[in-house]
Amino acid sequence: MSSWVPGAAGSGYDVDHLPYGVFVTAGAPARVGVRVGGFVLDLAPLTAMHQLERAEVFRADSLNPFLDAGFAVWQRTRTWLGELLTQQEHRDTVEPFLLPVEDVSPRLPLVVGDYVDFYCSEHHATNVGRIFRPDGEPLQRNWRHLPVGYHGRSGSIVVSGTDVVRPCGQRLESDDSVGFGATRRLDLEAELGFVVGGSPTAQPVPPADLAERVLGVLLLNDWSARDIQAFETVPLGPFLGKSFATSVAAWVTPLAALADARVQLPRQIPEPQPYLQVAQPAGYDVDLEVWVNDTLVATPPYASTYWSPAQMLAHLTVNGASLRPGDLFASGTVSGPARHQRGSMLELSWGGTEPFAMADGGTRTFLEDGDQVTLTASAPGALGGRLRLGEVRGRVLPALDGR
Amino acid sequence: MSSWVPGAAGSGYDVDHLPYGVFVTAGAPARVGVRVGGFVLDLAPLTAMHQLERAEVFRADSLNPFLDAGFAVWQRTRTWLGELLTQQEHRDTVEPFLLPVEDVSPRLPLVVGDYVDFYCSEHHATNVGRIFRPDGEPLQRNWRHLPVGYHGRSGSIVVSGTDVVRPCGQRLESDDSVGFGATRRLDLEAELGFVVGGSPTAQPVPPADLAERVLGVLLLNDWSARDIQAFETVPLGPFLGKSFATSVAAWVTPLAALADARVQLPRQIPEPQPYLQVAQPAGYDVDLEVWVNDTLVATPPYASTYWSPAQMLAHLTVNGASLRPGDLFASGTVSGPARHQRGSMLELSWGGTEPFAMADGGTRTFLEDGDQVTLTASAPGALGGRLRLGEVRGRVLPALDGR
Repeated sequence: MSSWVPGAAGSGYDVDHLPYGVFVTAGAPARVGVRVGGFVLDLAPLTAMHQLERAEVFRADSLNPFLDAGFAVWQRTRTWLGELLTQQEHRDTVEPFLLPVEDVSPRLPLVVGDYVDFYCSEHHATNVGRIFRPDGEPLQRNWRHLPVGYHGRSGSIVVSGTDVVRPCGQRLESDDSVGFGATRRLDLEAELGFVVGGSPTAQPVPPADLAERVLGVLLLNDWSARDIQAFETVPLGPFLGKSFATSVAAWVTPLAALADARVQLPRQIPEPQPYLQVAQPAGYDVDLEVWVNDTLVATPPYASTYWSPAQMLAHLTVNGASLRPGDLFASGTVSGPARHQRGSMLELSWGGTEPFAMADGGTRTFLEDGDQVTLTASAPGALGGRLRLGEVRGRVLPALDGR
Repeated sequence: MSSWVPGAAGSGYDVDHLPYGVFVTAGAPARVGVRVGGFVLDLAPLTAMHQLERAEVFRADSLNPFLDAGFAVWQRTRTWLGELLTQQEHRDTVEPFLLPVEDVSPRLPLVVGDYVDFYCSEHHATNVGRIFRPDGEPLQRNWRHLPVGYHGRSGSIVVSGTDVVRPCGQRLESDDSVGFGATRRLDLEAELGFVVGGSPTAQPVPPADLAERVLGVLLLNDWSARDIQAFETVPLGPFLGKSFATSVAAWVTPLAALADARVQLPRQIPEPQPYLQVAQPAGYDVDLEVWVNDTLVATPPYASTYWSPAQMLAHLTVNGASLRPGDLFASGTVSGPARHQRGSMLELSWGGTEPFAMADGGTRTFLEDGDQVTLTASAPGALGGRLRLGEVRGRVLPALDGR
């Protein structure tokens, strides 16, 4: 049943979605809201009035207290919101707390603890391998045995709408000398991020516990400076080539909203170690769109991923690593098998060698100053339509000193 | 002038040191203290009584509010403590707040934001290169151009005295198949960590600002599972081979206490990029000791490091990465040129091929269950003796399921 909220039906933000975020309005502190149709429901006063269990978690300036509260609270909150927003009898109570989405300013939805980025797309990893090692095996020996990942910089995570300054760093010049300056190969990476909640633990989390440990999903752009990354990355991995900024959407789509988006993933050969074995369907049929300015440059399908979110979570905890509410892990670049499904400009321009066309008649290999990157995504919802995930958007500003 | 505190003179904890930490006593909440002689000075009630500027930062259960307060507050606090602890007139006021160190339980001194581990010792990087690539160039192309680093897992940082469970993970077996189980190559890494404070920023921090951005230094053991690390590490760097635990000392030695420990570092060729150029002396003459049970297995000299702390900080921020109070960056394994100065068992046993003798008549290549690792260190202080840095200690527990 659709919501009574005007315009909710068919908007991508009906009651089968209900993504959470943090927002401010003029003169009032940041607080938690849920998106429905063209509105944001102001949860703090509404839940206080209803004396809802843990109402105080919605008065916070981040989702972290709600993340701490854990799975049972997430479930009951979603059930309660579904009732309020579909039953006409609640309309008079709820309507005063619906704010037009254009009247609120979104904030970073969570204070991120540890941020891990994975490398789960076989098509992406294969493309990267072919670009950088054209004569070798494209996938490393470990790739089909475990989801390869690394830690990123939590403090550099910014919310959609934040400008990104072109970073400077060291790089190999064309004559093979080492230089310093603004990156010449600024890239985007279209990813999905998974937001962790529940009690802190330092025990392995089995794949079956994904739904209890992950509140939801958000779009993530893992900005990358390919020349800086290339020079620094051996042997300890990406560092300054990534740590200048990672953009996330303002709205977290509950994992519960993606129940109808679950899909079977490609068969994994060799069979994973027992700690990585998942019940199918372990994938999510989320279709991404990558926009640079007014050009739709790619449509990566998350259904094509090799390693599933449940496997990422099981892997990152199998060694007894800490897991805290507010931790974030991401898929790595989502790329599908087709050329137009590649989730990075590195792949779309095949290492910068094949410029691609833009709607304005120009071409790109990597991002130029002033370019705006927007990631959007949709997935099948429980009401038969498609959920629209919160977009992630950012514009490239010139390097600080113009080098 | 030495402190009037009984036993402070010559203890390594006289007024030229004054390391900060967080502790609890029976029935009372965690709070900030400063170590002097065999005592911990309970700063919260003392500063409240004196109506000291920002006294509330010492009532916190971490150093983070003090880190937020910034350089000017650190300076004034140190001056004030020096006066209180040397001038006899303050003795009656201060003595009630001196708690015997054996009566307090230390806690993790800070909530770590982002944790970056570097690879700054030329001797260590050369040894590792020779062990893993005996026929190649030991140092990578980038090594003399920039301090190589990567992000570690903040949530897995534990305080000295915390047991460490042997982690499980995937590794190559001797027949070159892929297996899963408890690491067979559990190692220690003797490092120094640097604790960041001051206002959050996303601007490059020049090397000259080190003292204003770093409250102090602590010993750090970057536990490593070499077989897990070896299998996972290409191409994105160390992950589960490190993320199970990183141990830090309970006491943060102020950078101001190491003014007399500053030393000239080895000349850097090629000359670093301008953003990495430092005024000499940029090094610190801190002598580390690595103990496994009752055996002193190594004495790594931090004075032998190639990249200085000021350069690590400048490098990690040059791309506009965030810097927040509570961030931590570490030196990487400290190894000197001599065999007995190697700061990891990987190096001491040359990749496991050369077992070394223990005091009990046994030998080691890597750590065994039950082994206790203790790192200690000392440095010249302003009063002519040596400061003793807070030790970092941890015992290895068997893997969870005995595999």
